[in-house]
Amino acid sequence: MADFELDPRLARDTWHLGHVAGCQLLLMNDARYPWLILVPEIAGVTELHELSRDTFTQVTQAIADISKSLQSMTGASKMNIAALGNQVPMLHIHIIARNGDDNAWPGPVWGHGDPVPYSDDARQTLLAALQETLLSD
Amino acid sequence: MADFELDPRLARDTWHLGHVAGCQLLLMNDARYPWLILVPEIAGVTELHELSRDTFTQVTQAIADISKSLQSMTGASKMNIAALGNQVPMLHIHIIARNGDDNAWPGPVWGHGDPVPYSDDARQTLLAALQETLLSD
Repeated sequence: MADFELDPRLARDTWHLGHVAGCQLLLMNDARYPWLILVPEIAGVTELHELSRDTFTQVTQAIADISKSLQSMTGASKMNIAALGNQVPMLHIHIIARNGDDNAWPGPVWGHGDPVPYSDDARQTLLAALQETLLSD
Repeated sequence: MADFELDPRLARDTWHLGHVAGCQLLLMNDARYPWLILVPEIAGVTELHELSRDTFTQVTQAIADISKSLQSMTGASKMNIAALGNQVPMLHIHIIARNGDDNAWPGPVWGHGDPVPYSDDARQTLLAALQETLLSD
């Protein structure tokens, strides 16, 4: 997009997975949870309801598809889907695979302890698996 | 719906506003934030991606419509939209109006302190205003 630039905090905290439905798909660099972030590449949008009807349909369907695939891939007992943006206003949607034995369960993940960065090996393996599962047609 | 029954914890913590798009629309009994909950009346569903394509489109469009109206009505600086369900698995979507001076800002609302119940007068006034804004056509 012409003047879209990923928020620097999102860029700092994530790894780029690829593109889907006009969005960047990112992996949060926190090995405690399989945690994806979907960012529509539209400058200046902060709320889901600000998307045009067609874009909203595209983005929400991508959320459902990614959530379903990530749950299937990870065997997560619960998915958490959220558009918050209190700290980073740029519209971004969290898609997080949760389990009863994970670090923050049953609370939300935001603000819970410190992120645990992936090792290089773990990250590369996971990125490849996610790209294969989520982005190949 | 035939065998749908609202989760008792959701029933206990909320006031019933009305029906929209095949969902119950509830007001969380917490005067710290204008906080709505949308519950599709479908038994046994815990994930957004489990909804049929048509129902998913209906429900997500209702989320967008309610989010837009609630932000406009409250003047909230940010909306928080989330389907978590770690504690109450029945699929329910939070639609929360946030402000820079609210009780939990900029953190998420879940698990932050104790709810502050509405007074009878405040609740009745707010329920009437919400029904007028969100449910009248």
